[in-house]
Amino acid sequence: MNAQNEAILQKFRDITTKLKSYGEALSILHWDLRTGAPRKGAEQRSKTIGALSEDMFKLSVSDEMGECLDALEQADVFGELSDADRKMVTDARKEYNRSRKIPPKLYQEYVVLTSHAETMWEEAKEKADFEMFAPYLRDIVAKTQQLIDYWGVKDTRYDTLLDMYEPGMTVEKLDAIFGKLKEGLVPLVHAVQEKDEQPAYEFLHRDYAIEQQKEISLYLLKEMGYDFEAGRLDESVHPFMIGLNSGDVRITTHYKKDDAASAIFSSLHEGGHALYEQNITKEFDGTPLSTGTSMGIHESQSRFWENMIGRSRPFWNRYYGELQRLFPEQLNEVEVDTFYRAINRVEPSLIRTDADEVTYNLHIIIRYEIEKMLFNENLPVEELPRVWNEKYESYLGVRPSHAGEGVLQDVHWSGGGFGYFPSYSLGNMYAAQMMHTMESALPNLETLVENGQLEPIKQWLTEQVYQYGKLLTPSEIIMKVTGEALNPQYLVDYLTKKTNEVYGM
Amino acid sequence: MNAQNEAILQKFRDITTKLKSYGEALSILHWDLRTGAPRKGAEQRSKTIGALSEDMFKLSVSDEMGECLDALEQADVFGELSDADRKMVTDARKEYNRSRKIPPKLYQEYVVLTSHAETMWEEAKEKADFEMFAPYLRDIVAKTQQLIDYWGVKDTRYDTLLDMYEPGMTVEKLDAIFGKLKEGLVPLVHAVQEKDEQPAYEFLHRDYAIEQQKEISLYLLKEMGYDFEAGRLDESVHPFMIGLNSGDVRITTHYKKDDAASAIFSSLHEGGHALYEQNITKEFDGTPLSTGTSMGIHESQSRFWENMIGRSRPFWNRYYGELQRLFPEQLNEVEVDTFYRAINRVEPSLIRTDADEVTYNLHIIIRYEIEKMLFNENLPVEELPRVWNEKYESYLGVRPSHAGEGVLQDVHWSGGGFGYFPSYSLGNMYAAQMMHTMESALPNLETLVENGQLEPIKQWLTEQVYQYGKLLTPSEIIMKVTGEALNPQYLVDYLTKKTNEVYGM
Repeated sequence: MNAQNEAILQKFRDITTKLKSYGEALSILHWDLRTGAPRKGAEQRSKTIGALSEDMFKLSVSDEMGECLDALEQADVFGELSDADRKMVTDARKEYNRSRKIPPKLYQEYVVLTSHAETMWEEAKEKADFEMFAPYLRDIVAKTQQLIDYWGVKDTRYDTLLDMYEPGMTVEKLDAIFGKLKEGLVPLVHAVQEKDEQPAYEFLHRDYAIEQQKEISLYLLKEMGYDFEAGRLDESVHPFMIGLNSGDVRITTHYKKDDAASAIFSSLHEGGHALYEQNITKEFDGTPLSTGTSMGIHESQSRFWENMIGRSRPFWNRYYGELQRLFPEQLNEVEVDTFYRAINRVEPSLIRTDADEVTYNLHIIIRYEIEKMLFNENLPVEELPRVWNEKYESYLGVRPSHAGEGVLQDVHWSGGGFGYFPSYSLGNMYAAQMMHTMESALPNLETLVENGQLEPIKQWLTEQVYQYGKLLTPSEIIMKVTGEALNPQYLVDYLTKKTNEVYGM
Repeated sequence: MNAQNEAILQKFRDITTKLKSYGEALSILHWDLRTGAPRKGAEQRSKTIGALSEDMFKLSVSDEMGECLDALEQADVFGELSDADRKMVTDARKEYNRSRKIPPKLYQEYVVLTSHAETMWEEAKEKADFEMFAPYLRDIVAKTQQLIDYWGVKDTRYDTLLDMYEPGMTVEKLDAIFGKLKEGLVPLVHAVQEKDEQPAYEFLHRDYAIEQQKEISLYLLKEMGYDFEAGRLDESVHPFMIGLNSGDVRITTHYKKDDAASAIFSSLHEGGHALYEQNITKEFDGTPLSTGTSMGIHESQSRFWENMIGRSRPFWNRYYGELQRLFPEQLNEVEVDTFYRAINRVEPSLIRTDADEVTYNLHIIIRYEIEKMLFNENLPVEELPRVWNEKYESYLGVRPSHAGEGVLQDVHWSGGGFGYFPSYSLGNMYAAQMMHTMESALPNLETLVENGQLEPIKQWLTEQVYQYGKLLTPSEIIMKVTGEALNPQYLVDYLTKKTNEVYGM
């Protein structure tokens, strides 16, 4: 590469490094807001966040950035770039084009609208009053349609949205994938519902002291290999993981006094996200590649640790004794088998975030189908409650008695987050498919887990997934790890096997 | 003001608002580093801090800023500005000129040098090896001399440094002030040393559980009016206060298991700093005026609460019972009078940060005299240990046995912080002078404190000092509050009276 192109590449790297720095500052401001920032500073804080976000946005769409991209995309230059630089240029171009195409006025209106809508949604949900929220939702859908038209419609409008969260994902692919998933899971749910004997679970809701819940959370995070010198565990209303850089990946959990399982599985879930970010190659430090590659792949790592490992029988064969030691009064008379069945109980319910491993995916499919109708079939917003309730009845056999436990339950739409929901089920499917491969790669997997030797699992995931950060696309990752494209059958098989075991079917 | 000037004023305000936002982001990054950020993220973090600091610096010396200042300083425009805008323009100009005068290369060298020097100082202090640190210190002094020449020498070179921390302060003024202070305090220290009977204090070093220390710290902070909805108390190695904005003013303290007093007085001290920042008028939110006006005035507010209130007899008449309740075993047989005398014991010592209220000022005067010699009389750096030790012997009657407890004890010089030390004693003097005025303004002051009615005190300080933030200069503040310029006699009188009481002299 000649000196001039070297200089341009350096300039491009400087810009991305600066963007990453702004990102870290914004992340810590958000982390702080959610883990104990004083209430009275919130107003000024939001101005600070606004100012930094604006600078970050301006830099990412600056003429300077555009010139770098133009130069680096020249065939002779692009051919000489490293894989990492090529991926960074490609991603930056995608972002640049997306953002430059939007008239600033429309974007501004959209930001104001969604920020008001979230407040309105909260109140509407509280009051279970869909009419109150409907005008906002109608506006958000309309503005999102406009945005899609500027961004450019792929096969269908909804494709444009899907691609934002899961690059390369399309309606055509997802229709097929979710179709098979539904086909596999709906009968499973019905079979479970027909069983007379359901697992006992009341003992999970005895009085569980927070201090000991904290102890077991910290202990299990250490066991799974979460590095506390490169992270910390705090509390927040909604648990989350936030990666500031690969040496500072923080997680939060929440403790409920009447729930033995909630904090444990939140910790394992966020811990799974964190293992991903902590183990990206240090070469990518300070670059945009030092993060997970998509929402779906990220979610696969959290679900893998939470469900495939954390809700497995070998895991509790190893760790149930520790839990009993912390809660002797509550658990000494509960067998490990009883505990295992309780944390894997399947029961159709109305609320997605409380759903079990099996029915969870049906909650997602319902949202996917509805979002598709909104954007590709112009379903009027006022029809949403009816469609929602019908689908819940049909897929899950339950019907919301009001919008608060139905169509208003999720925050996502109030912020314009259409296309995000599928990531959750994609995560489950990626995870099950990877688990299948891992079982061949580590033939003694169950024994390892049973002995609390989780290090080889982390190691394998680091080699296969974590280290690459954002270098590979989601479809490249799943192909490289498992040798085939995303295949929902693995999740169906995994859930069928486990459910049959738990229910003695 | 015409529309064009209005637009310029608006632009100026936008720039200062953005600078304030960057400042808040940097503050939270620093706060986080000192209250539990994971070790492995530190390297990337320092790059993030570097990137934001650079942007902030560039904006403060940008041509854009220069053009705004030029326009707003035109006599006809300046005359029409509000007091607040005028002060902001004046301060911004001072900063702008200072920074623009420095060749970027020199500044860069200075930053690198001082950042290396701090690490080197730590090691040298540990090893009590002055020779190891001397070359760095020589360089820092030389580069600081160069900086002063660029900034412009006031009456003397050291004046230029003093003015950075205490605007308007000069060697001429300080020589007179510190002269009187020394004259008043040295004999007092000697008198105390001649007393056969010294206050008992061993009981302060029994085993004091951290949990209860935390409880009393939180309790006393609430009592003094620290607003926990606009702040929070954390732990750090060195206690500090950091104001993100007037609704988010955080403090830290440190707990020592074998020290009943350390955490309490750290909390009161940082709480005093925080009351100042929390009670600046909301009108100044988001502007550079929403902070304390100088190091000296800031220190006066921390010392006021720590010493004038917190080490007073009425205060412990009210609160000693609470402390006994938390530590019955340790304190039930210790009378309040004994406790009061212990926390006001005067004893010459080698280490500034451990010094009592009286001798503390002599530690500062020694540093002031030495810094003056370095910059105004070209005292060679290698002479420092000798001069240091001689002055300690002469003023305090103690002599360091090695540099670690002598000339190497403070971090300040390694970072180039010459001219800062006087702020500590200025704080003590301002505080005593304000206390004198307050005693007339609130004639029942002792009774108020004795009853735990601290609100009127906070109220008075808010009216007199806090609300103004940086609008008034230090000399304007002390004149407005007390009706006269800074007068060291008040501190001498206060310390003499208290010491006589404690020592029965």
